[in-house]
Amino acid sequence: MLQLVIGNKNFSSWSLRPWLLLKQAGLPFREIPVRLRQADTKAQILAHSPSGKVPALIDGDLTVWDSLAICEYLAEKASLNHVDLWPADPKARAEARSVSAEMHSGFAALRQQMSMEVAASRPGEGQTPEVLADIARIAALWTSCRERFAAAGPFLFGDFSVADAMYAPVAFRFHTYGVELPPLAAAYRDTLLALPAMQEWAAGARAEVGA
Amino acid sequence: MLQLVIGNKNFSSWSLRPWLLLKQAGLPFREIPVRLRQADTKAQILAHSPSGKVPALIDGDLTVWDSLAICEYLAEKASLNHVDLWPADPKARAEARSVSAEMHSGFAALRQQMSMEVAASRPGEGQTPEVLADIARIAALWTSCRERFAAAGPFLFGDFSVADAMYAPVAFRFHTYGVELPPLAAAYRDTLLALPAMQEWAAGARAEVGA
Repeated sequence: MLQLVIGNKNFSSWSLRPWLLLKQAGLPFREIPVRLRQADTKAQILAHSPSGKVPALIDGDLTVWDSLAICEYLAEKASLNHVDLWPADPKARAEARSVSAEMHSGFAALRQQMSMEVAASRPGEGQTPEVLADIARIAALWTSCRERFAAAGPFLFGDFSVADAMYAPVAFRFHTYGVELPPLAAAYRDTLLALPAMQEWAAGARAEVGA
Repeated sequence: MLQLVIGNKNFSSWSLRPWLLLKQAGLPFREIPVRLRQADTKAQILAHSPSGKVPALIDGDLTVWDSLAICEYLAEKASLNHVDLWPADPKARAEARSVSAEMHSGFAALRQQMSMEVAASRPGEGQTPEVLADIARIAALWTSCRERFAAAGPFLFGDFSVADAMYAPVAFRFHTYGVELPPLAAAYRDTLLALPAMQEWAAGARAEVGA
């Protein structure tokens, strides 16, 4: 069975992405939880993954690390069973990879000032000008996708794809920090938050902190 | 013809990656240069790409942005002509995507303290403890790949792949900042620097600064 090394559900945004993709794809897996920010965290992760960071996916004798590379690996694996985790249309797939990579390498201000803390509520905090610029870009990106792909389904490119997994931590952030969004972006955030898998993750986060 | 929007060759490490991949794949393209760090830079890029950042690839009516997403798009495009820009073996491909994504989202200290400046020489600068940890991880990663894939070719996974394009800016950084490396990692850095396309990029960088 696949095994996924993940950090704390309350704040490991990188871990959430492949975890959610596995759940949405219906692929069975076993969690290997590692508590972050402990003296032995790095050593514990290095026992599983050469980068020393979560998440890592273990598939037999193969280890795949980094959230985006794991998602690509799962997309290849699912395609063998005729399940698409990227949009089937090449142009939509290229755009889905663009917005996924933009999230993967960007939005530094948002990630720093509104760090994911699923079980917390901090409305109004963290709204620096740089963060507001990041939020405006994400809202525009979400809105543009939802305007064009609404007929195909409720997610960024219609059906659930890697792109939705990549932005799932942002949905938790917008909830925790009480970020106001334009209507289509707000509706998409709520679609993500209402997913049973997202609610399962949030329950795990609350259990970690005793909330 | 494909068009690639790129920043200054002297310091746009993100631009170098898909540019080098296009060159190595033998795909013809036209450069659209944008001078970074000018008052109108963002507006100029936004005319081509919704993220407002370089690089961006324009293929007819499709725009693909972010270095890694462009590389994935080019890999799909090349595969139609039976050219592999990712390793053909699924396990090697998963590892190549892992190290590519690790570069794409990580090594923040190296990127900040040893920013790419192709035409400059600053030996010894920037070697903070965090940077040295990043360098050690990259040296270990390069060495591990070269130990296992030497028989298949001179690059990380044998033949040139997206992973090599992702680490190409690091080769320039190690050269500029005079970073000492273990033998296999040093030899791999030199392999990258000796590529005609890398020399062409470096000449372009020197021309920009009048060196």
